[in-house]
Amino acid sequence: MPELRRDPITGRWIIINNDSPKGPDFYKSVPSPKKAGVCAFCNGNEKMTPPEIMAYSKHKREKNTPGWDVRVVPNKFPALQIEGDLNRVGIGVFDLMNGVGAHEVIIDTPNHESEIADRDESQIRDMLWAYRDRSLDLRKDKRFKYILIFKNYGFTAGASLDHPHSQLIALPFAPKRVVGEIEGAEKYFGYRERCVYCDMIRQELQEKELTITENKSFLSFTPFVSRFPYETWIIPKEHVSDFPQIQVEGINDLASIFKDTLSRIKKLLNDPAYNYILHSTPLDDLARDDYHWHIEIMPRITRVAGFEWGTGFYINPTPPELAAKTLREAK
Amino acid sequence: MPELRRDPITGRWIIINNDSPKGPDFYKSVPSPKKAGVCAFCNGNEKMTPPEIMAYSKHKREKNTPGWDVRVVPNKFPALQIEGDLNRVGIGVFDLMNGVGAHEVIIDTPNHESEIADRDESQIRDMLWAYRDRSLDLRKDKRFKYILIFKNYGFTAGASLDHPHSQLIALPFAPKRVVGEIEGAEKYFGYRERCVYCDMIRQELQEKELTITENKSFLSFTPFVSRFPYETWIIPKEHVSDFPQIQVEGINDLASIFKDTLSRIKKLLNDPAYNYILHSTPLDDLARDDYHWHIEIMPRITRVAGFEWGTGFYINPTPPELAAKTLREAK
Repeated sequence: MPELRRDPITGRWIIINNDSPKGPDFYKSVPSPKKAGVCAFCNGNEKMTPPEIMAYSKHKREKNTPGWDVRVVPNKFPALQIEGDLNRVGIGVFDLMNGVGAHEVIIDTPNHESEIADRDESQIRDMLWAYRDRSLDLRKDKRFKYILIFKNYGFTAGASLDHPHSQLIALPFAPKRVVGEIEGAEKYFGYRERCVYCDMIRQELQEKELTITENKSFLSFTPFVSRFPYETWIIPKEHVSDFPQIQVEGINDLASIFKDTLSRIKKLLNDPAYNYILHSTPLDDLARDDYHWHIEIMPRITRVAGFEWGTGFYINPTPPELAAKTLREAK
Repeated sequence: MPELRRDPITGRWIIINNDSPKGPDFYKSVPSPKKAGVCAFCNGNEKMTPPEIMAYSKHKREKNTPGWDVRVVPNKFPALQIEGDLNRVGIGVFDLMNGVGAHEVIIDTPNHESEIADRDESQIRDMLWAYRDRSLDLRKDKRFKYILIFKNYGFTAGASLDHPHSQLIALPFAPKRVVGEIEGAEKYFGYRERCVYCDMIRQELQEKELTITENKSFLSFTPFVSRFPYETWIIPKEHVSDFPQIQVEGINDLASIFKDTLSRIKKLLNDPAYNYILHSTPLDDLARDDYHWHIEIMPRITRVAGFEWGTGFYINPTPPELAAKTLREAK
């Protein structure tokens, strides 16, 4: 069973893989993109994945058969296991938990070649509805405190399969950076009684220097304190802390700005690898006045030096104002 | 002038390069290791670097001439500038400072081919004395609150030159992760009145499961909560918060355990790229009861997925007990 360990200094939880631990030989060969012969995520190959958790389809179909639009399956190599108790113990200065959680793969589309930038908006909407529906289902399990939705696109971003897919991890704790965001937002709210994200949005809607694009519900922009070149956030203009409260109009506007933004990044930076992560409120408080859900997109175009991990201190060679300007012009 | 920007949410400071901003074309080509024709860091090429700040030599020599053992020069492409005032201002919700600081390159040795694992201990000692002496000199400048010493070894770790070198950055703030460590250590000290690092060391000296190697003054081990496979820390057994208080015996023991540890990593993992960072106490409080300086070594053998940056949540496929065992056996 995977193991959750807590750092007594920073409070960070990490997952240790105890079931198939990787020894030195695993790391000795230089990694390279795998070329799959047959893709387990393509239409018609449903038997190659673990049994599906959910799928959308425009017509009636049997489970694990072709004809779906979005399909959700358990991760074949899960970082966490769904069965079991958390069973929290201490070992000297350290805390330990069983690695209980969920790790699912959302197969965005049956089309092997259709990354978000090239996809019909209706397909992007299906993917976003799956994000919402899986979140709402998993949060019924009271062991889970956080649901993390993300995508690794391209080999250097960590993707090990080409077929467009997203991942969902349900965790028995909120991840460190989200906790940090919430603590910071809470402090800001404490003396201003306003959401810091709402203030940032208001400031940007006046100044427009960091805006890439916007529509009725969303703003797409490069944060003033971008850690990475071309880091891009998509954020709802109205205050909402909990992503799954999104409604039809929100999904439609999000699909549209998502496609527009990722198309600009693809065009400007030559189809770079990227990661995105959806930051939503932890499950123990769904209606926070001080927190604001958003999506962070990070193109993987620089080698991040280890000292940036080791310090949390970033040097960004591209001013976000320049990034926004060039992304506005890329169309 | 570079610009320091502070994130109102997390409190993170970042550096934006305003002097030679990198536009989209900079990122379009796939990066690859540069092959230098003539190496500016080699003996005899002293005129190719900015004028030296300091050098050690066994015999009398003119500045910027051959015959040195360690040589320190300003970084040719500094992330921060030494001249100027901090000039802190607010722009709406954001804080802004001039990018005042120092960015130096420590040329570890005149020998182009001598990484730490292969080097004489006397050469490693010289490098460590340079770390100490530059720290002591720079901390006289009261604008600086933190001195960061690190090394990027190998292309994937961010090194852009082959010649063995380290870097030093003096900052007008303590970096986020160090602040986080100190806050956590402070909290731990608050209810136990003991240093959390000392407790970890005591626990490890009894259990020995994470130990790679040790000598009189230092312990080399894989942390129980390792974020990365084969993450390794070197820490003084005695409580000291401030690295530059190290004395002759400490430097000798550190050079010896550093070489031993990095030799094992080189052998076991096939000469991987790595980063190391020296974590010492911020300059505003040099003698902390709750903080303990140490060196963190991170081999760069996995593609870190962006969601790990975006969440501060790590999945480590190699249990640190296995990492320690195989590193103990690699000799």
